Amino acid sequence: MPNIQFLNPDAIGRPIAPYSNITRVKAPEFLFIAGQVGMDKSGKTPADFEGQCAQVFANIGAALASQGAGFPNIVEFTTYLVHWQDIGKSWNTAREYPRLFPGGGYPTNTLLTVERLVREEFLIEVSAVAAL
Amino acid sequence: MPNIQFLNPDAIGRPIAPYSNITRVKAPEFLFIAGQVGMDKSGKTPADFEGQCAQVFANIGAALASQGAGFPNIVEFTTYLVHWQDIGKSWNTAREYPRLFPGGGYPTNTLLTVERLVREEFLIEVSAVAAL
Amino acid sequence: MPNIQFLNPDAIGRPIAPYSNITRVKAPEFLFIAGQVGMDKSGKTPADFEGQCAQVFANIGAALASQGAGFPNIVEFTTYLVHWQDIGKSWNTAREYPRLFPGGGYPTNTLLTVERLVREEFLIEVSAVAAL
Repeated sequence: MPNIQFLNPDAIGRPIAPYSNITRVKAPEFLFIAGQVGMDKSGKTPADFEGQCAQVFANIGAALASQGAGFPNIVEFTTYLVHWQDIGKSWNTAREYPRLFPGGGYPTNTLLTVERLVREEFLIEVSAVAAL
Repeated sequence: MPNIQFLNPDAIGRPIAPYSNITRVKAPEFLFIAGQVGMDKSGKTPADFEGQCAQVFANIGAALASQGAGFPNIVEFTTYLVHWQDIGKSWNTAREYPRLFPGGGYPTNTLLTVERLVREEFLIEVSAVAAL
Repeated sequence: MPNIQFLNPDAIGRPIAPYSNITRVKAPEFLFIAGQVGMDKSGKTPADFEGQCAQVFANIGAALASQGAGFPNIVEFTTYLVHWQDIGKSWNTAREYPRLFPGGGYPTNTLLTVERLVREEFLIEVSAVAAL
């Protein structure tokens, strides 16, 4: 069983979105999850940002479930957006967080706006590291 | 000896390029390899993308070999390109993969197009995590 | 106690800035530190790049100190800049490195120029992995 702690020390500012500044982890095993985009297993990608976000998290959830794990096993997210105007909308996925992370804490996240993802229609990509 | 599994669960789409969606790893020791660019040890950088790709992989291979490891020890790649038009060409490196990864599976990869690397002439940079 | 080695094998070129090509680590526990920006705990962000750099490193130092660790525990940095023109200035932070890393070696770093960070005024963001 991994020992995972999500920490926000007082000495640095509170995170400005739903993530933690530090994840401390002691675990015998790790999962590296390749950046997931908003494409489902049939190859379909919603045109809108929020639809893509939902699919990204569905893909990450499916990757975790395939290994007997869930969102509370995540120790690090890295989020890549194509349009900075979507940053605010990306926090909306946090509406799902209380359900995904029933323990209350959230993993670290680093959010970046880059020039392009693998295909032009992809608006968000999230990679993750999990501990088992 | 590390225990490394490259996994592509059915519940998410097949990777659209030669990488795996998940690497599962149990290992006593890890290598973090700084982003490698297409410059050789004498400081020369080929002008073309494919020449730079070959040098990037030569550098990563040399970094691994210096620690008694090889490509099958890689658990995660992150690939940064400057021009999205090079994305297709970047898959060409996969022609080498059957030789580099004789076990058959490939590590996770997250591919991003960014604005610039450390020097203007660098067209690709790849960082990696390996398990020993 | 983690066993951390910073390595620069001869077979690849010397790093072109103050970082190592490889960190080799054997450790029972890891910290993932979310990308830190140049904002202090009161919410203030210096307008200039060098002021933001100093705050980024102060935040990372505070995150490490909160867990009984310090800069020598860092195994990997990833540095994101918004303006490539700041790349040269970013090496200036290395003036502090002999004090931060008294053992002499420096962790790996991957430096990227991206389109934007979470807020327009942020000019640099650094994420880190540390070993305990």
